Amino acid sequence: MPGVRQVHLNLFAHGCGHHVAAWRHPDSSVGRLGDIEYWEGLARTAERGLFDAVFLADGQSVGLDGLDRGPRWYLEPVTTLTAMARATENIGLVTTISSTFWNPFNAARQLASLDHISGGRAGVNVVTSMTDAEARNHSMEALPPHEERYARAEEFVRVITGLWDSWPSESILADRKGKYVDAELLKPLDHHGAAFDVAGPLNVPQSPQGRPVLFQAGASEPGRDLAARYAEGVYAVAWDLESARAYREDIRSRAAAHGRDPDSLTIMPGLVTYVARTDEEARRRQRELNELLPVEDSLRQLSFFVGTDTSGWELDAPVPELPPLEEFTGPQGRYATVLRIIESTRPTVRELLGYLAAGGGHATFIGTPEAIADEIERWIDAGAADGFNLMPPALPASIEDFVDLVVPVLQERGRFRREYGAGTLRSHLSEEPATRAGLAAAAAG
Amino acid sequence: MPGVRQVHLNLFAHGCGHHVAAWRHPDSSVGRLGDIEYWEGLARTAERGLFDAVFLADGQSVGLDGLDRGPRWYLEPVTTLTAMARATENIGLVTTISSTFWNPFNAARQLASLDHISGGRAGVNVVTSMTDAEARNHSMEALPPHEERYARAEEFVRVITGLWDSWPSESILADRKGKYVDAELLKPLDHHGAAFDVAGPLNVPQSPQGRPVLFQAGASEPGRDLAARYAEGVYAVAWDLESARAYREDIRSRAAAHGRDPDSLTIMPGLVTYVARTDEEARRRQRELNELLPVEDSLRQLSFFVGTDTSGWELDAPVPELPPLEEFTGPQGRYATVLRIIESTRPTVRELLGYLAAGGGHATFIGTPEAIADEIERWIDAGAADGFNLMPPALPASIEDFVDLVVPVLQERGRFRREYGAGTLRSHLSEEPATRAGLAAAAAG
Repeated sequence: MPGVRQVHLNLFAHGCGHHVAAWRHPDSSVGRLGDIEYWEGLARTAERGLFDAVFLADGQSVGLDGLDRGPRWYLEPVTTLTAMARATENIGLVTTISSTFWNPFNAARQLASLDHISGGRAGVNVVTSMTDAEARNHSMEALPPHEERYARAEEFVRVITGLWDSWPSESILADRKGKYVDAELLKPLDHHGAAFDVAGPLNVPQSPQGRPVLFQAGASEPGRDLAARYAEGVYAVAWDLESARAYREDIRSRAAAHGRDPDSLTIMPGLVTYVARTDEEARRRQRELNELLPVEDSLRQLSFFVGTDTSGWELDAPVPELPPLEEFTGPQGRYATVLRIIESTRPTVRELLGYLAAGGGHATFIGTPEAIADEIERWIDAGAADGFNLMPPALPASIEDFVDLVVPVLQERGRFRREYGAGTLRSHLSEEPATRAGLAAAAAG
Repeated sequence: MPGVRQVHLNLFAHGCGHHVAAWRHPDSSVGRLGDIEYWEGLARTAERGLFDAVFLADGQSVGLDGLDRGPRWYLEPVTTLTAMARATENIGLVTTISSTFWNPFNAARQLASLDHISGGRAGVNVVTSMTDAEARNHSMEALPPHEERYARAEEFVRVITGLWDSWPSESILADRKGKYVDAELLKPLDHHGAAFDVAGPLNVPQSPQGRPVLFQAGASEPGRDLAARYAEGVYAVAWDLESARAYREDIRSRAAAHGRDPDSLTIMPGLVTYVARTDEEARRRQRELNELLPVEDSLRQLSFFVGTDTSGWELDAPVPELPPLEEFTGPQGRYATVLRIIESTRPTVRELLGYLAAGGGHATFIGTPEAIADEIERWIDAGAADGFNLMPPALPASIEDFVDLVVPVLQERGRFRREYGAGTLRSHLSEEPATRAGLAAAAAG
């Protein structure tokens, strides 16, 4: 039954939504960003939609430049996800941890603790930090070189996974008349590496999942390699099906080269959706947010991306023709994305600014629930994705719309679970739901 | 009305209780240490008792030696307290953070986040770590020297408080048609010190308390000085009223010397209580735990403390005479405590082992609710304490007993709040409750 591959869905919860002007909307959540009940509510909505996980990104610097243009960071992710854990029962909880600045013993310990607290629902997206502003909050003048950061990230992953294995639960005897622990079953790590020396064992016993689930979001060469070697969940960036498929195939073949089963990786491109019962209404929602964009700022950013002064461009006219990729001398990746957006959507200037303002190069599906489900199925069946990391343009509205409108369509089509299976995040990701067997049986019968 | 000084109470939640044999009791919580509902239940019990705060200690190494003799660490404190925050409404939440191993930016951020999540109830006991085993989990071969650790602790406190002040809440305009933030009101830290360089500002806006409440537990010279300069809450160690008073007076005069109002410090010695409706029953509870002690281990530890082979001592006979303090050549502090315990309680050998096994030198009150309330009042009125950090020998039973039996007596005597006042931890600690004014008015009328 190759036609019924299942869809995995994560919610990437971020501020007032992923559209940079979302906070300006009259209905926005801008006054609630420090209110834990807002965040718990997002996790509950995603859980109502039976999502695999809710994911929080992270940064280690507020960055004064541009701070006036919208909220950036607010609550810290590990504490926020811990509160979410107690407000939900089934959904996975994925934090971001910077391997550049975190201490692996503390990270391993908090993640194991979150895994205990959530009953086996913790995951971690191990990243390398990317700005000197962040380094200056951590006693460095500047970031270490790219290569060194990736080497450190890889060592970080080995240390935390080693620590998670170091205190096996079977060692806990809790024999009231004898030993509390059979200390001989503990496995000190005795790690000595270029970046870290960690004796171990961890001072948290093995958590329900054993190891919290490892995520990666690497696009660079060493990032892809790290994903291929260690990740069980991968967050990808792709504007269109073709680039998503190329990325997924690359990661899968790298994983195979490292001796892993490619099917053990769940690859989820970021996805921005504008959904409503009619196509017109969906487009109106997108337009409403785009009209809130601070146009001057957005045009200035666009000028930088395309290496042309765009300040005179007419907002509601089609985007003027741009030189082909091979003639562009600035950063190629972003320019290529801009060209692909123009080619695939033939947008007005304002629409182009809107695509860049929500997701900045991530896939964007707009339309009715059926149209969005069609597109999701198309990506899944083409081998471009195992699921999607949803980046709702406005929160909480856009995720409520997705859960209420799109999830039921995916369920009707046999593409998405109707209830949670076993309770761990790892089991959600690896689940081949009963529907699949059911459909196969139905087809055979 | 100097006769009605109010009592402050914290719960020091730890494993199955502070008696090292507590986990061996048939009713013990030993199977629930990884269950967040157990910890939430302890916080709820303390909140039912209107305590100022629940406190968690911390260590950065499990230590294989002796691990078979009982549970040590389990869940990580910041995550545990975050869950407790969502299970309670009023009680303060005090974590321990090692300034020796934590990164101050991450610490400041998680604490500010906990303060947001709890609505202004976060506190932090900043400690210097004390063992090489912990250092070896953090890329050090051994601990830095004592002096360097305290210098780092002091710098750590300055950095985290500076970060907490760096993003004033009034800077957040959230003006949908204009600026999100007035970035000019943010205050970068630009800290450059011996241990840390931290640019700031913090990427969490000002939390409800502004600064989470600083606690200290210093007994050494630099520890006392740190407490006197920065702490609002102080956890002390004192076996008897005299040593508690000497410690409190020392801290208060050091605080005054630093230009602080001594009354702005709430000094709380650790307190082990065995309470029941009759004195006999209270003593039976203590005996029951003492009988579970692994005698050989305890005697070996005692031999080390007193510099004498105690393995032949008869358990139920009085403790044999020991040489006076000035003749003892080993560590003086612990030996002095042992002598004071013997002098003040005339214990059997088993009883002495029991006192050392629960609290190891902290005050221990045994008896009826009235007798324990008497002793608490005596300490408070003698200027030996502003309150107590309760170290229940067995959890959850001993804290339930205290809340159900002792708190009502303290309330009847006008010594303890009958309801929470304003919601922050800082306000709990500084509160001079309505009862005091009420009693004064009653006396005047």
